[in-house]
Amino acid sequence: MDDIRRYIVEFIGTFFLVFTVGLCLVLPGNGVIAAIAIGFILMVMVYAGGYISGGHYNPAVSLAAAIRGALSVKHCIFYMLFQFLGSLAASGLIMFLGGMVEGAAECPFTLTQLIIGEFLFTFALCYVVLTTATASKTAGNSYYGLAIGSTVTVGAFVTGGVLCFGAFNPAVALGLFALNIACLKLALITIGVNLVAAAVAAFVFKITDKEDLLL
Amino acid sequence: MDDIRRYIVEFIGTFFLVFTVGLCLVLPGNGVIAAIAIGFILMVMVYAGGYISGGHYNPAVSLAAAIRGALSVKHCIFYMLFQFLGSLAASGLIMFLGGMVEGAAECPFTLTQLIIGEFLFTFALCYVVLTTATASKTAGNSYYGLAIGSTVTVGAFVTGGVLCFGAFNPAVALGLFALNIACLKLALITIGVNLVAAAVAAFVFKITDKEDLLL
Amino acid sequence: MDDIRRYIVEFIGTFFLVFTVGLCLVLPGNGVIAAIAIGFILMVMVYAGGYISGGHYNPAVSLAAAIRGALSVKHCIFYMLFQFLGSLAASGLIMFLGGMVEGAAECPFTLTQLIIGEFLFTFALCYVVLTTATASKTAGNSYYGLAIGSTVTVGAFVTGGVLCFGAFNPAVALGLFALNIACLKLALITIGVNLVAAAVAAFVFKITDKEDLLL
Amino acid sequence: MDDIRRYIVEFIGTFFLVFTVGLCLVLPGNGVIAAIAIGFILMVMVYAGGYISGGHYNPAVSLAAAIRGALSVKHCIFYMLFQFLGSLAASGLIMFLGGMVEGAAECPFTLTQLIIGEFLFTFALCYVVLTTATASKTAGNSYYGLAIGSTVTVGAFVTGGVLCFGAFNPAVALGLFALNIACLKLALITIGVNLVAAAVAAFVFKITDKEDLLL
Repeated sequence: MDDIRRYIVEFIGTFFLVFTVGLCLVLPGNGVIAAIAIGFILMVMVYAGGYISGGHYNPAVSLAAAIRGALSVKHCIFYMLFQFLGSLAASGLIMFLGGMVEGAAECPFTLTQLIIGEFLFTFALCYVVLTTATASKTAGNSYYGLAIGSTVTVGAFVTGGVLCFGAFNPAVALGLFALNIACLKLALITIGVNLVAAAVAAFVFKITDKEDLLL
Repeated sequence: MDDIRRYIVEFIGTFFLVFTVGLCLVLPGNGVIAAIAIGFILMVMVYAGGYISGGHYNPAVSLAAAIRGALSVKHCIFYMLFQFLGSLAASGLIMFLGGMVEGAAECPFTLTQLIIGEFLFTFALCYVVLTTATASKTAGNSYYGLAIGSTVTVGAFVTGGVLCFGAFNPAVALGLFALNIACLKLALITIGVNLVAAAVAAFVFKITDKEDLLL
Repeated sequence: MDDIRRYIVEFIGTFFLVFTVGLCLVLPGNGVIAAIAIGFILMVMVYAGGYISGGHYNPAVSLAAAIRGALSVKHCIFYMLFQFLGSLAASGLIMFLGGMVEGAAECPFTLTQLIIGEFLFTFALCYVVLTTATASKTAGNSYYGLAIGSTVTVGAFVTGGVLCFGAFNPAVALGLFALNIACLKLALITIGVNLVAAAVAAFVFKITDKEDLLL
Repeated sequence: MDDIRRYIVEFIGTFFLVFTVGLCLVLPGNGVIAAIAIGFILMVMVYAGGYISGGHYNPAVSLAAAIRGALSVKHCIFYMLFQFLGSLAASGLIMFLGGMVEGAAECPFTLTQLIIGEFLFTFALCYVVLTTATASKTAGNSYYGLAIGSTVTVGAFVTGGVLCFGAFNPAVALGLFALNIACLKLALITIGVNLVAAAVAAFVFKITDKEDLLL
C-alpha cells in the first residue's frame, strides 16, 4: 500500500506538469510567460508530494535518484510507468478539451542544438535535485522545490523552441509527441538525451558530494 | 475571542485576494501578468495569517481542511461566512472606485471546459494546502505559502479566460458575479465544482499521506 | 556603535529601494515589469539587513513596529531620518545619472482613489511585516522577506499609476517628489495616508495576534 | 580531492550562469524577461552548490568572501580560475551553437553610468551574499539563494543595457567580451569596478555585522 501511495503522487504530479506544458503550447489565449507557469507547477508538485514519493515526475530524475542510491530499482521502474501514464492522461485530456496541433511544425533547431540543449538543462535539473533534495548536508531545507522548478523555468526560457523542445523530461517528451508537437524521431532522441544527462548528473554528484561518501 | 481573531484574519485575507483579482480584471491600466499578482497576494496573506487562522481565504480550502480533520465544522461555517463577507467588501470597494464591467461578456469557454478547468486546479490547490500546510511530515516548513500561491498563479495562467474563470475559490466566484464578470449560473456552477474538487482532494490526501493515518 | 550599524543598514536598504523605483520610472529602456523589480529589491534588502536593523526601509513600517512594541521611540525617529536620507541620496544619484521627469504629469487618479490605494496596501505591507517578522509564532521562518517584498509587488501591480503612486512608503513618496513625479501636495497626502495605515495595521495586529498578548 | 570538488562546482555554476546570460543576449527567439532567467539560474546554482563550495560563481563574490575571512587566499585564486574557465567554456559553446554578435554595438551608456551601475549592484550582490550566506545570525536559512539571485535580477532589470552591461561579475564580463558584446576596454573597466565594489561591500559588512566581530 505504501508503494501505491507513492505511485499515485507521481501520477498526479506528472499529470499536472504535462497538462500545464500542453495548455501553454496548444490552447489559444494562454501561454504568456509559459516558462514561469511550467517551472511553478513543477515547484508546487515537488513541495506537495516530495515527502511522500520524492516528487520526481520525471523518468530522468528517477533514473538519477536510482543511480545515486536514493531509489530502489523496482521503485524506479514503477515511478517511470506512472509518470508516463500521468503524461498520457494529461495529453488525452488536452485533446478532449480541443487542443491539438494540426501537424508537427518544421523544427526550428538542428539535431546538434537539440542534443546540447536537452543535455545541459536535464543535467542541471538532475544535479539540482540530487544536491538540494537528497544530500545529507541540505536535509530539511525549504528551498528544494523552488530550485528544482526554477531550473526548468530557466531552461525553457533560454532553450525552449530555440535550441530544443525544452522538455528535460521523457514524460514531457512523450506528451509533446502525443500532442503532435514533436515527431516520433525527435521525441525519442529527446528521451535518450534526457536519460544520458541524468546518468552524468548522478556521476558528477557522486564526485562532488563528499559528505554522502558515494564513491 | 480566539475565534473572532481567526475570522478577522480570514476576512482580511479574502478581502485582499478578491480586491486584487477584481482590480486585475476591471480597472484600466493594470493587469500586466495578473496571474502573478493574484498568486502573490494569496501567498502573502497565507504567510501573514497562516499561524492564526490557517490562512484559507477560500471556502473550498476550508471544506477540504474540515474533511481532512484540521478544522471543526463550526469553524468551517464561520470561515466561509467571513470569506464571503470579505469578498463582498472587496467587490463593493472596487465598484465604488469605478470598476465594473458593463455586462457579462459572452463566455469564451464551454461548460465542459469550465467544469474541468475549475475542478483540476481547485483539486491541485486543496491537495497542495493539505500536503504542505497540514501534514505532520512537512510541519515547520517555510514554503507552504509559496506553493499555495503559485498553484493559483499557474491555474490562472493556463486556464483563466480560456477554459474557465480561473477562480478555484467560491469567494472569488462570488466576487466575479458581484462585479458582473460571471453570470449567476456560471458562478454557481463554479462554486459547486470548487467544493466537489475540495472533497476529492481531501480524499486523495487521506489515501496518499500515511504518516497522518487518516484512513 | 550598535545603533549606528542599524542606521547604516536602513540607509543602504532605503537607498537601493528608492534607486530601483526611480530607475524604473525615469530612465528610458528599462522598466519592464517594474513591480517585480521593486518588490524583489525590497525582499533582498529585508533578507540582507533584517537580522541587524529589522529591515524596515520605510517610515510607515518603523512606525508600525514602534506601536507594536518592537522598536523604541528613539530608534524609530533615527530609522525614519536615515530612511529619508537614503531616499534623497538615491534621488540625487538618479538626477546625476540623467533621469528626471520634465514636469509632474497630470494625475491619472482622483484623491479618493489615491487615499484608498495607498491606505490599503500600506496596511497590507505593515500587517505582513508584523505577522511574519515580529510574531513569536513565526520566529525563525525563511519566508518573511519574500512575503514583504511580494506585498509591494502586488500593490504596485494593481494600483500603481491607476489608483495611486504605489509608494506605500513615505521615503519612496519623498523620492517621487524629489524626482518630480509627484507634486508636493500629493506626496504629502501619500505620506500621511501611509502613516495612518501603519497605525491601523499595528492595531489590527494587536487584536489578531493572541500569542504575543499585546492588548 | 576536497578542493577539486569545490572547483568543479564553481566551474559548473559559472558555466550555467554565463551560458544563460549569453543565450539571453545572442540567440534569436529567447530573451523574454532575461533578467528573471539570469537571476533564477544564479539562485538555482547557489542552492545546488552552496553547501560544497559556497556557490560564488563570481570572482567579485570570492574576493568579498576572502576579505571577510570566509575563504582562504588559495581557494580564492583557484575559485577565480575555475570561474573564468567556466565562463570561457560557456561562451565557446554559445559560439559553437551559432550565437555571436557581428560586432560590438555602440555603447548606449557613458563611462560614468557604467561605473556607477556596475559598482552599485555588485556592492549590493556582495553585501547580500555576506549577510545571508556567511553571517552567524542567519546560518541555516533557506532564503540565501533567492536573495542572491534576485539581486542580480533587479540589477539587470534596472541597469542592464541602460546604465551598464549588468554583469556585476568579472566572469560574466569576460563572457560578454568573448561573445563580442563588450569591447575589451569596457570589459576591463567592468571587471575592475566589480572587484572594487566587492572590497567595499566586505568593509561595510565588517562595520554592520557585530555578531561576527570582524573589526
